[in-house]
Amino acid sequence: MALMTGEQYVESMRKLNLQVYMFGEKIENPVDDPILRPSLNSVKMTYDLAQMPEYEDLMTSTSNLTGEKINRFTNIHMNAQDLVKKVKMQRLCGQKTAACFQRCVGMDAFNAVYSTSYEIDEKYGTHYFENFKKFLQYTQEKDLTVDGAMTDPKGDRSLAPHAQKDPDLFLHVVERRPDGIVVRGAKAHQTGFVNSHEVIVMPTQSMGPEDRDYAVSFACPTDAEGIFMIVGRQSCDTRKLEGSDIDVGNSRFGGMEALVIFDNVFIPNDRIFLDGETEFAGVLVERFAGYHRQSYGGCKVGVGDVLIGAAAAAADYNGAARASHVKDKLIEMPHLNETLYCCGIACSAEGAQTKSGNYLIDLLLANVCKQNVTRFPYEIARLAEDIAGGLMVTAPSEKDLRDPKLGRYIDKYFRGVNDVPTEDRMRMMRLVENLTLGSAAVGYRTESMHGAGSPQAQRIMIARQGNIGMKKKLAKDIAGIKES
Amino acid sequence: MALMTGEQYVESMRKLNLQVYMFGEKIENPVDDPILRPSLNSVKMTYDLAQMPEYEDLMTSTSNLTGEKINRFTNIHMNAQDLVKKVKMQRLCGQKTAACFQRCVGMDAFNAVYSTSYEIDEKYGTHYFENFKKFLQYTQEKDLTVDGAMTDPKGDRSLAPHAQKDPDLFLHVVERRPDGIVVRGAKAHQTGFVNSHEVIVMPTQSMGPEDRDYAVSFACPTDAEGIFMIVGRQSCDTRKLEGSDIDVGNSRFGGMEALVIFDNVFIPNDRIFLDGETEFAGVLVERFAGYHRQSYGGCKVGVGDVLIGAAAAAADYNGAARASHVKDKLIEMPHLNETLYCCGIACSAEGAQTKSGNYLIDLLLANVCKQNVTRFPYEIARLAEDIAGGLMVTAPSEKDLRDPKLGRYIDKYFRGVNDVPTEDRMRMMRLVENLTLGSAAVGYRTESMHGAGSPQAQRIMIARQGNIGMKKKLAKDIAGIKES
Amino acid sequence: MALMTGEQYVESMRKLNLQVYMFGEKIENPVDDPILRPSLNSVKMTYDLAQMPEYEDLMTSTSNLTGEKINRFTNIHMNAQDLVKKVKMQRLCGQKTAACFQRCVGMDAFNAVYSTSYEIDEKYGTHYFENFKKFLQYTQEKDLTVDGAMTDPKGDRSLAPHAQKDPDLFLHVVERRPDGIVVRGAKAHQTGFVNSHEVIVMPTQSMGPEDRDYAVSFACPTDAEGIFMIVGRQSCDTRKLEGSDIDVGNSRFGGMEALVIFDNVFIPNDRIFLDGETEFAGVLVERFAGYHRQSYGGCKVGVGDVLIGAAAAAADYNGAARASHVKDKLIEMPHLNETLYCCGIACSAEGAQTKSGNYLIDLLLANVCKQNVTRFPYEIARLAEDIAGGLMVTAPSEKDLRDPKLGRYIDKYFRGVNDVPTEDRMRMMRLVENLTLGSAAVGYRTESMHGAGSPQAQRIMIARQGNIGMKKKLAKDIAGIKES
Amino acid sequence: MALMTGEQYVESMRKLNLQVYMFGEKIENPVDDPILRPSLNSVKMTYDLAQMPEYEDLMTSTSNLTGEKINRFTNIHMNAQDLVKKVKMQRLCGQKTAACFQRCVGMDAFNAVYSTSYEIDEKYGTHYFENFKKFLQYTQEKDLTVDGAMTDPKGDRSLAPHAQKDPDLFLHVVERRPDGIVVRGAKAHQTGFVNSHEVIVMPTQSMGPEDRDYAVSFACPTDAEGIFMIVGRQSCDTRKLEGSDIDVGNSRFGGMEALVIFDNVFIPNDRIFLDGETEFAGVLVERFAGYHRQSYGGCKVGVGDVLIGAAAAAADYNGAARASHVKDKLIEMPHLNETLYCCGIACSAEGAQTKSGNYLIDLLLANVCKQNVTRFPYEIARLAEDIAGGLMVTAPSEKDLRDPKLGRYIDKYFRGVNDVPTEDRMRMMRLVENLTLGSAAVGYRTESMHGAGSPQAQRIMIARQGNIGMKKKLAKDIAGIKES
Repeated sequence: MALMTGEQYVESMRKLNLQVYMFGEKIENPVDDPILRPSLNSVKMTYDLAQMPEYEDLMTSTSNLTGEKINRFTNIHMNAQDLVKKVKMQRLCGQKTAACFQRCVGMDAFNAVYSTSYEIDEKYGTHYFENFKKFLQYTQEKDLTVDGAMTDPKGDRSLAPHAQKDPDLFLHVVERRPDGIVVRGAKAHQTGFVNSHEVIVMPTQSMGPEDRDYAVSFACPTDAEGIFMIVGRQSCDTRKLEGSDIDVGNSRFGGMEALVIFDNVFIPNDRIFLDGETEFAGVLVERFAGYHRQSYGGCKVGVGDVLIGAAAAAADYNGAARASHVKDKLIEMPHLNETLYCCGIACSAEGAQTKSGNYLIDLLLANVCKQNVTRFPYEIARLAEDIAGGLMVTAPSEKDLRDPKLGRYIDKYFRGVNDVPTEDRMRMMRLVENLTLGSAAVGYRTESMHGAGSPQAQRIMIARQGNIGMKKKLAKDIAGIKES
Repeated sequence: MALMTGEQYVESMRKLNLQVYMFGEKIENPVDDPILRPSLNSVKMTYDLAQMPEYEDLMTSTSNLTGEKINRFTNIHMNAQDLVKKVKMQRLCGQKTAACFQRCVGMDAFNAVYSTSYEIDEKYGTHYFENFKKFLQYTQEKDLTVDGAMTDPKGDRSLAPHAQKDPDLFLHVVERRPDGIVVRGAKAHQTGFVNSHEVIVMPTQSMGPEDRDYAVSFACPTDAEGIFMIVGRQSCDTRKLEGSDIDVGNSRFGGMEALVIFDNVFIPNDRIFLDGETEFAGVLVERFAGYHRQSYGGCKVGVGDVLIGAAAAAADYNGAARASHVKDKLIEMPHLNETLYCCGIACSAEGAQTKSGNYLIDLLLANVCKQNVTRFPYEIARLAEDIAGGLMVTAPSEKDLRDPKLGRYIDKYFRGVNDVPTEDRMRMMRLVENLTLGSAAVGYRTESMHGAGSPQAQRIMIARQGNIGMKKKLAKDIAGIKES
Repeated sequence: MALMTGEQYVESMRKLNLQVYMFGEKIENPVDDPILRPSLNSVKMTYDLAQMPEYEDLMTSTSNLTGEKINRFTNIHMNAQDLVKKVKMQRLCGQKTAACFQRCVGMDAFNAVYSTSYEIDEKYGTHYFENFKKFLQYTQEKDLTVDGAMTDPKGDRSLAPHAQKDPDLFLHVVERRPDGIVVRGAKAHQTGFVNSHEVIVMPTQSMGPEDRDYAVSFACPTDAEGIFMIVGRQSCDTRKLEGSDIDVGNSRFGGMEALVIFDNVFIPNDRIFLDGETEFAGVLVERFAGYHRQSYGGCKVGVGDVLIGAAAAAADYNGAARASHVKDKLIEMPHLNETLYCCGIACSAEGAQTKSGNYLIDLLLANVCKQNVTRFPYEIARLAEDIAGGLMVTAPSEKDLRDPKLGRYIDKYFRGVNDVPTEDRMRMMRLVENLTLGSAAVGYRTESMHGAGSPQAQRIMIARQGNIGMKKKLAKDIAGIKES
Repeated sequence: MALMTGEQYVESMRKLNLQVYMFGEKIENPVDDPILRPSLNSVKMTYDLAQMPEYEDLMTSTSNLTGEKINRFTNIHMNAQDLVKKVKMQRLCGQKTAACFQRCVGMDAFNAVYSTSYEIDEKYGTHYFENFKKFLQYTQEKDLTVDGAMTDPKGDRSLAPHAQKDPDLFLHVVERRPDGIVVRGAKAHQTGFVNSHEVIVMPTQSMGPEDRDYAVSFACPTDAEGIFMIVGRQSCDTRKLEGSDIDVGNSRFGGMEALVIFDNVFIPNDRIFLDGETEFAGVLVERFAGYHRQSYGGCKVGVGDVLIGAAAAAADYNGAARASHVKDKLIEMPHLNETLYCCGIACSAEGAQTKSGNYLIDLLLANVCKQNVTRFPYEIARLAEDIAGGLMVTAPSEKDLRDPKLGRYIDKYFRGVNDVPTEDRMRMMRLVENLTLGSAAVGYRTESMHGAGSPQAQRIMIARQGNIGMKKKLAKDIAGIKES
């Protein structure tokens, strides 16, 4: 099968038997649920763009397994240029959706599992690499969306997985059968699970010998027996139920997060990529996190482009575009945004080959990238709120605007520059609200903070990778100090 | 009449005939409307606290007009200590509501109109000061909540009021009668109008001779004939309709903003405080803005205290309170918050007497105060999001928690430290969400940015008040340069 | 004796027999040494200004011991207004010297020892308070400059005083005699010791029971037998030897620091204020540090005023004063500077009475003040370098300017705005250099960082004083969480 | 001739007849002048490293003109990888010198003139490209150091070159002869001129048709008839005259800046690369500035590495390396430094081919790079001062340390961790001083601010290159606004 179209993707999702709960109720048709649909549309964009000739170079690649044309979201990066194109593809998708398009976690899982499973086999003579390549080829041929699930609930953070009071607070193997394993546990904050065909499960942290049953990685369908999910609430989530195009800010696209529970799920042997080789849990985590921290140097930059554009348009509508302080803020915003992009590009361009043959980003620079992502989007958002003005949080509802009596007053009194319709001004204000306070702020702010690891996780990696010892040596050389 | 109790206040509000619209419909009973009620409760807190002996010194004062005990929100500041106590009262109210309690605008309008009307009379022989004192005494005796309305829609910002295409984009006198005036226009982003008995209207900016009809200040009841309001949407506003205590984060308190339309409202002569003395429009604006910029050094600090406490409690619940980076962030947050408080206190302690006898804050320091308020709450919020973790934006709904099947899994998997109920952890996460992304973020973030004037307005005042000329002279003296 | 004039102060210093070493040699006449003289001039300014009627209110006070008029630098603060005036006096002195005027440490020591010695006596029946008052009265009557010496070398920071390998790394009592004690040790980074008549020595940190000999505070003349000092090098120190008025940037004023060694110094009994009451060592440190952290909200603000003026003048001379980005930076600089001032004022206005009757600043706010001082002067300096332009670090020497051949080219090519002499432009550039890289940068930058305690010391105090427990309670109240 | 050794370079410099003035006197032997020699050593390092096999890949390249091996500082970048290697070479040189090694300006001039001269020829049929290639080949074969001189004095910045009162404030053609041109004017802040064999002169800004005589670019020997230079003063410059190894902080390496005067200098026709084609002045400036802004993403990062190492070593010596706040600062410093590196790498990796065949960096990202360089080194320096402690600005002189009497006390009292010699601690403190306040601070701070264009110059480029129009379109698409 060739690349799926966006419509084919949507239809393929209808065929799944997903167990989705929200507000205490089972969602029978998640594809058409008004709260969930925008997040599906964001994933759909990764299929739509791949069909467009002008984006072919970015959105598609050639399988290193089959030589066939594939969607880049299923690609194994075989050189630094692949890593760079990945970032550019993500910026593009961010620009087109102003939301989280969710398909990156799978791509990042592919590449992390690829090299790690190779190295496990090398050491232990296991067959994880073959298992994984088979799964990957299936994914590429079907052009599937795959979630990458890492974050366990973790319970008491001062205790190792095996030492938790409740053994399920980290996902683990509860039974071993000849044909496979049974796992139990949960993955929290899962972005895009509800819009994925398959999921790659990975451990969430480094593990010791006693955590053997917790050091497990595998793939399974998202509608496998025993899996169900509870959707998290986003800021302003229920506005999508109101039928207002304006009030939601971004009526077509969005993200979603869910708690996914694995309640005794069977995994056949050929879908297992790690099982008990505890010292590789940390390797897998470090690589996945590294790729995913690189990703944020693309996707969040794309969303930032939209927010910068929204602030600039709001300034136009307010009649303030020529004020020197507004112009200056509209320089600072792209300056910060492009700094993030620089980090995304640099850790890609400096990528290096793994033993398995694929390319890994520069880990130090990828962590630097993500660390900046925990800061600059907040400042970009602050500047956008500054430029937009108070109306972004005090504008009345679309219902008021459409009301025959009230609408007249709103049109009269909320007009900025005379030749711009008040409705357009309100739409732009709502988009700024959506990205800074509303449902997209979950992705643009809090996910920038905690996605792919909280800030301190990057700081630990920077400490590890920063080579302070070499720098001390440089300083001693200059200062004329002989090292003993 | 003595000070009203909170309950009396609520009952007094029921008696008003306010014209309130929301979602295209008239709200027949705003007092009990679930979306509006939390904002009423915040104002009610200013009455409740005044009844409590431990807060009497901060919450009450003695009328300079009558010598009677009054709520400090109706006080004329007669010395620097009054200015300091005002800030402390506001911090207290912020701590108790974690929201905008709305009654400051009236207090700030009182003090600005007091000294300005005195000076107009002095120059022109008008009787505005007497008018105002009469109104003020009425307010004090009835212990009323009074809105202060300043922000006009302003239309095209490059044009003066009289030069706008639509003459109503600034509120103005449309008719003069022997017994009073008729005004038309609107005031935008009005905080607390729906919870006020009266309103003091003021011009929004400096004005030139041709803006004569726009240079008008007066008081009138909020339910005067011709006044109606359209309530603005806040982030997560409709969560209050769901009946969930947890999901709203702060179920008792909130703020509100509205567009208030003055559609040919009659103002009797004795309620007029400025009418055509255009050179005093700027004076009134500068003073009101100055007092209100001081206010933010109190109220936002109080809300900040709650957010700091919420982050600290979240760290406890997450089991992360002992991590050195968490401890450090819990130092940085109060550091920033207390810096704001320093600014609020300093501009108060450095206040000086006006000709009328009341005290005006130090204008330079008050603008410095507000300028910091446009920055630090954003950083405090960012740090709170950092500490809280991703759960603050991905937690499921209270309905899921209460569901017999799902609730069990939520309780199991979202438990942090084992001895803290999962429900408490979710409550705390929701409070952080409320303050950083939800309905209170409108007050804590965007209002911190734009309330009492957008950041650039303060910068202009700092430029004016900063006395760069004196500083250049100091530098030339040190550098040995003779000034020609 | 009445207040000394500046000249009398200089003459009084000549009479001392100070042991001063610099560049490996003994300085026979420190008063007229070209490297040290500017620092003497800075102290002299505290006498000169006290003679000027326009500064009388700030620069002088009334002794609480004698009722006589005294220089405020010898004052015991008897109310919050005294604390506020102290800060204003310091800002004034900073404006007039653009340097550290050194006399604050004594003033801060006076007030810390005053209340602490009172409390020790109260607990132990000692006579330290009387000893101190006698010393203070002597100081006031002679109008002396007194150093306050706190910082011990400290050696290995992980070990307590008594546990150091070398017992002298903290100053301590080495002998007890009927008539007094003998002390040994050193105090590092001593600002102004060479320009002081007397010194108050205090312990440098909290101490435990085993540190008994280290918990000692006393006063003695700076030329007491056994005391000598080694002057520290400042950036650009030897430029003062070149005889160039321009190249030094600030030819009249400066600061100085020295290592002061106490090599078996005898202290008579009536000059002892603490001796072995170890639990009061921490109290004394906390109070002195608190007062001194307040001080920085005055003195550094005054120096900042000069730097802001220098940057503004440089912009004039460069012909760049009307560029919007320059104007904006000239708003940001005073904004930051006045924020520091707000902190200085606020911790003063919120001061409270001690048992001894004098006033102590608000400790939380004073620490917040100093913490900001470790940041904002750096940003102010950065902005000044931005505005000044590269010439501030590449201008040729005054000798080049005075050279008949070269001077012509310098005048021609370094002229900015045509009507400003090139010499004036060079003078202003050198002043900016002096404050940001040169000898005054030691005071304006590094001393802002480490003086009165390094940044982490303030953070520890903010953690202690920040009352996080109360804030958690506020958050729980709002979130609807019952505390168990 | 092959690559020169460092020694050969030094000898080659001795043969030049440079006219150098400093402190009003002519320096007869600049190579051995103690103030200038460290800057020569920094350039020498670019020769020394090129001889070392381990750095061959970075330090050398293959001439696109001759196919011969050349020093990369004379290379024309023929692909993106060349641009990346340039940045890495610069980081290496910064690490080895902790100073400005000066040879970048020539390299950046080569590449800017290469593509620009090609395009002028294409349009006008001139022979500048041939002229330039001939000069370049000569440079490569002789392995020369070439300065790139751009910054004119500029006088009144509101006037164009031809409109200045003094026509020489921008360098210009004053005579045209059959065999060449005569030029007059000056170039300010010239880094490395005194250590260069040749100079490429370029115009300093965009020019209009009336500035024809000012739109001139050429090369000539640095000791050409009519050229002389006046060396600028650096912070702590004369410490190098004292013979102290310790006190200078970095005794071997440094930078230097000078005003270079062109007093009627003859330029033969075959050394002219632009003469009157005014519209190309701006192109040349933009490209040179772009390359040079990229450079700062390498060299300053290398110097930053040394400062980070110095701070880390100081923490070791102070016994503070395990304090959590110190560890955190030692993460923040490399985080900021690597962010700069990311920008340097990204603008290189995203480089694109010009018509002439060489590669130009991505202009937007190169300007973002430099903009960050105007900020982060200041913060890195601030953190270094924080970690180092006050001793970095109060340590006594080496003479004191070497003094038999004083040295004993210094050794005793300035010892930190017991097993580190006090001398080593002092050396490290002096290095931190050198980089943050001393002579290297000129390069690490002020040159980071103003070199390659002041911050506002980058902001203008970011505004131009940021494509706000496209971003507004993205936002309107998302907000559902049809563009009219």
